[in-house]
Amino acid sequence: MTAFDDLMAFQRETSALGQIAGRLGWDQETVMPRGAAAQRSEEMAAIEGVLHARRSDPRVGEWLAAAEPPDEAGAAQLREIRRAFERAQKVPGALAAQIARTTSRAQGLWAQARADEDVAAFLPVLEEVVALKREEGAALAAGGSVYDALVEDYEPHTTGDDIAAIFDAMRPRLVALRAAVLDRPQPAGLTGTYDEGAQMKLSRKIAKVFGYDMTRGRVDKAVHPFSSGSGADVRITTRTNPSDPFNCLYSTIHEVGHAAYEQGVDAGFALSALGQGVSMGVHESQSRIYENQLGRSRAFTGWLLGEMRAAFGDIGIADPDAFYAAVNRVHNGYIRTEADELQYNLHIMLRFDLERALMAGDLQVADLETAWNDRFATDFGYPVDKPSNGLLQDVHWSVGLFGYFPTYALGNVYAGCLHEALRKAVPDLDAQLAQGDTSAATRWLRDVVQRHGSLYLPREVIERASGQVPSEGPILNYLEAKFGALYGL
Amino acid sequence: MTAFDDLMAFQRETSALGQIAGRLGWDQETVMPRGAAAQRSEEMAAIEGVLHARRSDPRVGEWLAAAEPPDEAGAAQLREIRRAFERAQKVPGALAAQIARTTSRAQGLWAQARADEDVAAFLPVLEEVVALKREEGAALAAGGSVYDALVEDYEPHTTGDDIAAIFDAMRPRLVALRAAVLDRPQPAGLTGTYDEGAQMKLSRKIAKVFGYDMTRGRVDKAVHPFSSGSGADVRITTRTNPSDPFNCLYSTIHEVGHAAYEQGVDAGFALSALGQGVSMGVHESQSRIYENQLGRSRAFTGWLLGEMRAAFGDIGIADPDAFYAAVNRVHNGYIRTEADELQYNLHIMLRFDLERALMAGDLQVADLETAWNDRFATDFGYPVDKPSNGLLQDVHWSVGLFGYFPTYALGNVYAGCLHEALRKAVPDLDAQLAQGDTSAATRWLRDVVQRHGSLYLPREVIERASGQVPSEGPILNYLEAKFGALYGL
Repeated sequence: MTAFDDLMAFQRETSALGQIAGRLGWDQETVMPRGAAAQRSEEMAAIEGVLHARRSDPRVGEWLAAAEPPDEAGAAQLREIRRAFERAQKVPGALAAQIARTTSRAQGLWAQARADEDVAAFLPVLEEVVALKREEGAALAAGGSVYDALVEDYEPHTTGDDIAAIFDAMRPRLVALRAAVLDRPQPAGLTGTYDEGAQMKLSRKIAKVFGYDMTRGRVDKAVHPFSSGSGADVRITTRTNPSDPFNCLYSTIHEVGHAAYEQGVDAGFALSALGQGVSMGVHESQSRIYENQLGRSRAFTGWLLGEMRAAFGDIGIADPDAFYAAVNRVHNGYIRTEADELQYNLHIMLRFDLERALMAGDLQVADLETAWNDRFATDFGYPVDKPSNGLLQDVHWSVGLFGYFPTYALGNVYAGCLHEALRKAVPDLDAQLAQGDTSAATRWLRDVVQRHGSLYLPREVIERASGQVPSEGPILNYLEAKFGALYGL
Repeated sequence: MTAFDDLMAFQRETSALGQIAGRLGWDQETVMPRGAAAQRSEEMAAIEGVLHARRSDPRVGEWLAAAEPPDEAGAAQLREIRRAFERAQKVPGALAAQIARTTSRAQGLWAQARADEDVAAFLPVLEEVVALKREEGAALAAGGSVYDALVEDYEPHTTGDDIAAIFDAMRPRLVALRAAVLDRPQPAGLTGTYDEGAQMKLSRKIAKVFGYDMTRGRVDKAVHPFSSGSGADVRITTRTNPSDPFNCLYSTIHEVGHAAYEQGVDAGFALSALGQGVSMGVHESQSRIYENQLGRSRAFTGWLLGEMRAAFGDIGIADPDAFYAAVNRVHNGYIRTEADELQYNLHIMLRFDLERALMAGDLQVADLETAWNDRFATDFGYPVDKPSNGLLQDVHWSVGLFGYFPTYALGNVYAGCLHEALRKAVPDLDAQLAQGDTSAATRWLRDVVQRHGSLYLPREVIERASGQVPSEGPILNYLEAKFGALYGL
């Protein structure tokens, strides 16, 4: 056994233990008895402790120093293991434990504050979280940018400046497009109620249509839809709302996109450091292209209308163009997770600028709500009406996720690049989608993105797949063309 | 922090990781996608490796040497941790790994051999398993009895001689009772088909009637019913068969008995070495007294008849005495898991004598089928018709479970002792059971057995609870009285 082989064997067990932690998370959100919550948090802490100890095990350092990668994939394995090892080395255990304790408390306080519409009740603990994450970021950055160091956890090899360059170019065009669209008459949306069992049944059918492998996964209901697991066990959840079947169906397609990435990774990378999606942004590119560029296309919604009428009977919309307009309806709102394809990115940019300023020390927690509300009014044209529609709407900051938000919009940017290339690679894509056939599209995505797992760096895999350096051009062109046509601009 | 405190903190994490392993087992038997099996076996191996390393961690030895228990419970904590530590020290890692690999292979070969009715295809690998378990037993026994050392894993502080003394006294009376019963006319059983959804619904109701706490558990379907987990997350499974609702209902009550033990342990023992049932035998005493002495009593079946008629309509039996006779019908058969209360123990005694002789080297694997068939004909009065009804019926030996079988019958013996004491403690028990009220009985069992977890040794907890040294007398008196009355002996 060489040092490289030893390290791979050790990593294989670590990856298996990581899968177990993911499975516990799935269990918690789907089937766990509610009385088990406190015990589960101890179980999670125990397995996370094991994982941390393994990632920072001194033997890993020795193996990394001695290992000779046999090939390109082997070099990528070492790159990923080294990244986790160095990260684990840099953050003192006491700080990591304090972050875990504080964010656990902060999440509860956030939920209560949101229910009570009471920002003041949340700010003190948010202040603690911000301070701890700045401390962690400083430990990771070793003199560099705190925010960049935190982004690295979710989108490796991408900096705040990289993201700002893209977002700053996007924002004016999105604000202008949004204003023009909302100046036009609105199409009708769905009315009526839709049987929740039938929604789940149609969801499962659509999941299969998009290539989700049910022998290596399953579909359940959860409060917040998510995808979980890698390799041979990749599960998704969705949710149902009797008056909004699109929520269920498009949550499913979104999570199928995430799951397709994990199910699509080369089997040879299973239970290794390359055996999962390479970043949150690339992950989101898959979920978004499945959900939006494919699932919300005129061609696919034409097929979906027939499926909905078969599942629910008369849905009050018989014309495919009207149905397409209903699926893609743009309307005023406050909540990021309910935003349409066009406005979603504006929500992200707001959070990105604020959290980056927080981490840089240029914005204080005490001034955060005002900053949020000012920016919202500027971009959306109307004021935030209550904290649960503003600063308190997202869980992320309470649990210490700084640097995570921008990956959602990066995913849209990447999806735009991939979609442009996909249209060239599969010229008759619309004819296929109109038949409910996504196989050529999903096969192409598997081939150019998914199968590589973490082999290439995030922007590298998008560049190789799309044939261009990732930029905001394609997603903006796509949005302007789509919504321009829909709204007769 | 004292050495004792350090050890408790370390054990708490180990217990939490042990709960995770149990949760994975539940997942595998209930919700896991079938394509995930190979990955799951690596995940299980990884978590088992972590657990083994923690149980045999040199620091545990140091803490054990230095720890001063603050009280009786503390001393019991040390006793249980020491037992696991010494066991882990004695078995070489290479042997443990070889046993894991071989039994994994043997289980597959056993399943195929059973399907093919081909004993010869199974014996070679069984020979390997027997040799490995004898080696493991010898390592554990350090000069003592190999079989006793293996029993210790399932029923601590109980020897093969202890068990043989009880079983040898039971067997003639059971054989005689069985022969007398089968000489009498048989009561009618159930006919017809029973909706499986309604079976599950009634199962859940009965689980609650027996005190199962659904906020800390859940009921699902699985091929083989089981109970899983400790403390705040104790899940059970059952199964349905359209023509045999008793299978579903009594499997549920049986598993609720196991779950009640785990849910009933004092919360102060949670995630500690005392935080679960102390032995398989004591565990089985709880499942059996719930299932048989309570669930199959004349009083309770009177209530159950009303519930079945409410759930399924006319079931063809309207008279409570006839229903009681149908529930407790004794009939010829081959399969242990389908055996009635009376004959079950004879199946166990057969296996106990054979496996004890195998471990002692007094019986060879080549002679095992003949020995099985001879003994079966002696005790049951008719020959085994095919291997799947004989030597190949149980999974246990293929997976290396030698010393486990006797705990099933020990559980019946313990249940007999507890039942005698329960009748004295709750004189109007039958009047309560006739109303579907098990609360006095389950409260008593929680108080005298369940809440103690692993505080007392197995036979000690039964002796304290029942006020007598455990013996075969009560279960035999109970069976002779019950079946004597049912069959007019």
